[in-house]
Amino acid sequence: MNVTLSATLAANEDIERRRLAGERVLHLAFGEAGLPVHPALRERLAAASGHNGYGPVAGAPALREAASGYWSRRGLPTDPELVVCGPGSKPLLYGLLLAVGGDIVLPMPSWVSYAAQADLVGARSLLVPAPDGEGGVPDPERVAAAVTHARAQGRDVRSLLVTLPDNPSGTLAGASTIRRIAEVARELDLTIISDEIYRDLVHSPATGFLSPADVAPERTVITSGLSKSLALGGWRIGVARLPSAGLRDRLLAVASEIWSSPAAPVQQAAAYAYTEPPELVERIGESRRLHGTVARAVHERLVRAGVRVDAPQGGFYLYPDFTGLDFASSADLSAYLLDRHGVGVLPGHAFGDDPAALRTRVATSLLYGETTRRRLAALGASDPLELPWISASLDHLSEALADLRTTRRPPRPQVRAPLVAAPTTG
Amino acid sequence: MNVTLSATLAANEDIERRRLAGERVLHLAFGEAGLPVHPALRERLAAASGHNGYGPVAGAPALREAASGYWSRRGLPTDPELVVCGPGSKPLLYGLLLAVGGDIVLPMPSWVSYAAQADLVGARSLLVPAPDGEGGVPDPERVAAAVTHARAQGRDVRSLLVTLPDNPSGTLAGASTIRRIAEVARELDLTIISDEIYRDLVHSPATGFLSPADVAPERTVITSGLSKSLALGGWRIGVARLPSAGLRDRLLAVASEIWSSPAAPVQQAAAYAYTEPPELVERIGESRRLHGTVARAVHERLVRAGVRVDAPQGGFYLYPDFTGLDFASSADLSAYLLDRHGVGVLPGHAFGDDPAALRTRVATSLLYGETTRRRLAALGASDPLELPWISASLDHLSEALADLRTTRRPPRPQVRAPLVAAPTTG
Repeated sequence: MNVTLSATLAANEDIERRRLAGERVLHLAFGEAGLPVHPALRERLAAASGHNGYGPVAGAPALREAASGYWSRRGLPTDPELVVCGPGSKPLLYGLLLAVGGDIVLPMPSWVSYAAQADLVGARSLLVPAPDGEGGVPDPERVAAAVTHARAQGRDVRSLLVTLPDNPSGTLAGASTIRRIAEVARELDLTIISDEIYRDLVHSPATGFLSPADVAPERTVITSGLSKSLALGGWRIGVARLPSAGLRDRLLAVASEIWSSPAAPVQQAAAYAYTEPPELVERIGESRRLHGTVARAVHERLVRAGVRVDAPQGGFYLYPDFTGLDFASSADLSAYLLDRHGVGVLPGHAFGDDPAALRTRVATSLLYGETTRRRLAALGASDPLELPWISASLDHLSEALADLRTTRRPPRPQVRAPLVAAPTTG
Repeated sequence: MNVTLSATLAANEDIERRRLAGERVLHLAFGEAGLPVHPALRERLAAASGHNGYGPVAGAPALREAASGYWSRRGLPTDPELVVCGPGSKPLLYGLLLAVGGDIVLPMPSWVSYAAQADLVGARSLLVPAPDGEGGVPDPERVAAAVTHARAQGRDVRSLLVTLPDNPSGTLAGASTIRRIAEVARELDLTIISDEIYRDLVHSPATGFLSPADVAPERTVITSGLSKSLALGGWRIGVARLPSAGLRDRLLAVASEIWSSPAAPVQQAAAYAYTEPPELVERIGESRRLHGTVARAVHERLVRAGVRVDAPQGGFYLYPDFTGLDFASSADLSAYLLDRHGVGVLPGHAFGDDPAALRTRVATSLLYGETTRRRLAALGASDPLELPWISASLDHLSEALADLRTTRRPPRPQVRAPLVAAPTTG
């Protein structure tokens, strides 16, 4: 097993150090929703502060019931007995790797932690590029070949993962691609793990949304949580919808040995959130509009600067392609943007992309402001782009992009700290 | 990897089912502290309900600082930079297995999750019996032989674990045993993982407490948390004190991919708790007295019934030995106690003990009552044993013990559900 410091962690700590040192940094490297907790959730947490029992490993009955309602209202009737809650969707994804076992097919690029988790459990990832404009899904036509080849070499491939909508690309795979990947999974007898944590942040209802659970319910696990839609990342609450009692039991066996259960007061507040009361539906609507507006504005700045980038469809990410610039790697490009322009992004390499491809992930959610007051103002603004701190950030980005276009600097030698932590000497 | 439903989980779910079905069950099978949250902590949680950022993987600076003060006041000067917080000490222990790597020496018997976690990460446990009356520490004189033998067979043994005071035995290893195990660990170059989650619940200050970190600071990790001393099991907060930046970094690398961080509002309340304000020191003192009084009362009932059992020294556990009774295994004995007498205990087998040895773990903390009112009454009582619900429970236990002594029933065939969850068929 290879224990490495996550690239996200290292990059974000570097950015934080620079900010503390007084540097002007545009923080586009972190996938935090960047919005305050809704007061109704604060009240629910406070009201549940007396909850201190461990409770069931699967989660409190009220939370499982509410999550089942959440999915049922989205056309996916759900038995609360097949819902498992965890302290974030991240531990649930980790637990699923152990519960399903075997190797896993991942889209390339994909969220940094999938491959890192596979590495921790001793599984190997098969990275399969996503189709153009449909990030988050391994190209169905290439999956069959990759899995057949791996199996011929004796590898035990048991699952494939999709992210809908996607991190890092901000795009959403269309219905025909989802149907096709579900078909392929069925042919190859693969479990599908569908990470739908950004589902409620698809910017336009016209985009539509098809989950593999709609077409291959017998083999699809959905993971989700409240970190993105309700900005509760720090509360650590995730939910999984399992296709069978067998896999549920295996996940519970893992969960009971690794994390026991999510924090009990948080579970009570989350149970309320998953009933989707009007004030929280409204809050998610406002958040969705803000994420979409700002992501589109950043998209426009990139396009105006001549950068190739897919239009964002959900969440708060973009994945621009700077091909043509004179850098040896996405890491060099990212380091240059940070050192020269105070613009912090993550190199595509961190997402499993070709290190030499000049793609980076841009997260737009920390542009809303650094204080609760500014963030609420951004949420409530009829045009958030007119808020001075947001328009200044967009201009900061444009300046950096303009310079990138005109400057043809040779790539600098890399001077950053190594990402691999030294093994302990006891 | 072998994914099994934890024996604790299965047994406790069985007991819960019986209680819901109206059976009179004496629940002595679960290691929950059985006491309410102190109001000061409820207030702190509510006040921190606006904290929703992910925050550092190592934990909020205020919490790391407070935990470092906690250890420093116990004679272990601690750099806050070497403190890592997690959502419970359980995930921290799991993360340490990955961060340290290799196989691990465990005391036999020991807490159910250590060996299960080792199994999940693909490590093998070397079970070494604890010395008589000093549960929680693998017998130092037997560790060297076991590790030397395992290494000669090509196994990569890197750590040993101690529990101070112990679960399941309720005893505390003495200073000379701790000095000796630290010496052995140094000779064999093993990292010591010292689970000290019950440290503040050593019943009598006269007992003394020596941590391996006192004598082998260069190689000892301490894990702890607030689940037991402040009854915050359901809040999921643990802390680890690392001996080196190298191991800290490896643990952080694992933590960032599995759980990110504990719930942010819980971290703020925990930071307050670790400053050890007077009202919480008083609460822990009351809890310690209650745990000690009830554990000693159960000990007395066991001894009076002719059962061999060590006197409890910390926490809320006893580990009676029913040798001489006519049962084939601790599982049969436990099943008989539950079926015939409504007394729920865990078989020693679940703790890695010889299945044929008639030892069971008795947890006494759910005797305090099922309501907050009763639990507070037990905490405040000058003699909790006089409270009618506690004395009735003790009598319930005595009746079962009296029957056990006189009945020589043949062991029943086992009819319980298998503990191994069927693998998913996708």
